[in-house]
Amino acid sequence: IDQTRLPRELVEIDCRDVATVWSAIRQLQVRGAPAIGIAAAYGLCLAVQSCGEESEFFSKLYAARDYLAGSRPTAVNLGWALNRLVGLVESMRAASTGGQHRVDELRQAMWCEATRIHEEDRVMCHAIGAWGEPLLVDGSGVLTHCNAGGLATSGYGTALAVIFTACERGKSLHVYVDETRPLLQGARLTAWELQQRRIPATLLCDSMAAQVMREGRVQAVIVGADRIAANGDTANKIGTYGLAVLASAHRIPFFVAAPSSTFDLRSEEHTSELQSH
Amino acid sequence: IDQTRLPRELVEIDCRDVATVWSAIRQLQVRGAPAIGIAAAYGLCLAVQSCGEESEFFSKLYAARDYLAGSRPTAVNLGWALNRLVGLVESMRAASTGGQHRVDELRQAMWCEATRIHEEDRVMCHAIGAWGEPLLVDGSGVLTHCNAGGLATSGYGTALAVIFTACERGKSLHVYVDETRPLLQGARLTAWELQQRRIPATLLCDSMAAQVMREGRVQAVIVGADRIAANGDTANKIGTYGLAVLASAHRIPFFVAAPSSTFDLRSEEHTSELQSH
Repeated sequence: IDQTRLPRELVEIDCRDVATVWSAIRQLQVRGAPAIGIAAAYGLCLAVQSCGEESEFFSKLYAARDYLAGSRPTAVNLGWALNRLVGLVESMRAASTGGQHRVDELRQAMWCEATRIHEEDRVMCHAIGAWGEPLLVDGSGVLTHCNAGGLATSGYGTALAVIFTACERGKSLHVYVDETRPLLQGARLTAWELQQRRIPATLLCDSMAAQVMREGRVQAVIVGADRIAANGDTANKIGTYGLAVLASAHRIPFFVAAPSSTFDLRSEEHTSELQSH
Repeated sequence: IDQTRLPRELVEIDCRDVATVWSAIRQLQVRGAPAIGIAAAYGLCLAVQSCGEESEFFSKLYAARDYLAGSRPTAVNLGWALNRLVGLVESMRAASTGGQHRVDELRQAMWCEATRIHEEDRVMCHAIGAWGEPLLVDGSGVLTHCNAGGLATSGYGTALAVIFTACERGKSLHVYVDETRPLLQGARLTAWELQQRRIPATLLCDSMAAQVMREGRVQAVIVGADRIAANGDTANKIGTYGLAVLASAHRIPFFVAAPSSTFDLRSEEHTSELQSH
């Protein structure tokens, strides 16, 4: 979905080559940390579609990795997804002592890994929704900032997943949506996603949040994150820090909903780590 | 000045009848509490320009007062200025026992009173600047919200008067200007006024203020006010309350600069009241 054209038009972009993926990330047609990682992974697969032998495969692979990594250098998920695919085929090459790996196998392994990244995100988003929804009280107001919904992820969201799950389980919520200047992801994307799901919402100028809190309309603030450090420090859209200070001053709980990018469905260790967070 | 066309175009509106004044207030071509009061006072004078006898004068006066009062019903200065002029000519009529006051005298008294409202605001703004400027430390950062400058007043401003005076007296300041959604008075008007006076400034999305405070760039916040109650409660543009909470959390002093609408240059009592504030 070309997110720059929402909410006026719902237009899909058909990405059949790596340049289209690069441009989609660059122009914010796809944005949101998890969605960028997923798009980049599939983009890298497209880059090695038409190469006959292993040397050509790896030379195209490295060129495309560097090219895609430059589309949005600050997006951590981007480099993480690209390196995960490159690491996989490098380890396959290293493991094949003597003979050459057939390029088709490498290519197929990459598609599987990209699909796995996609699927992991899908599972994590639903898990975030399920674990988070008990935090939201039936009949309460919830404030969110920017877009941490389906558009930012594989389809279900992080912060919005918690809201979606609560509503699917029968809770009645009212969502206050910060418009999120300067690029208005709240007004354009979050408000649109809530409208699609018929969840009652009010769009706010960012500067109105404090007043809405003061009037007792907000019982929880929930946002996504570009990245969470091991100590809990969170990087997210400008305005998040101010909201956290305001929530604290009004004694409103503030939640950050985000998957761990090192999460691996196959690893027990990571599952328990995720649960403890 | 048509403030809706700033900063792209500097266009003056020639107000020669009460309908043009009504429309200028209604469409926010003139805005800012003091400026609205001044414009309304002159507008009321225009309404009684061409009437021959006293009964016609008063019937046009009351009609114009009600008409202008409806141009922006929430603006307290509007009703205050209109009532001040109406009260004046009513007391002149009451004082003239027996004979009719000549309409020219009433008209002239109204023009004098409108000019006095204008002049009082000019003096008060410069006084606010002079009394306020010691609060701003040389070399510091000052954050402001909306427009409390010359455009909002008789020409020198309230919150911006403090900044202007400090700069005129040789202090070096850096002003952080909240863009002030939804109507962008900060981006369109305050940034323009600071540019005209060559005062260094950075334009912010409203949601950035907390981060700029956190980084230690702001040593004072100063805003104007639509109205200040006797207990100090202040009504001002949406976002002001949130800024005050954020300033408090970062231990940054927060100043509200506004004249008292009951201030009267002729009254010693009010002068000392103003000084004590």
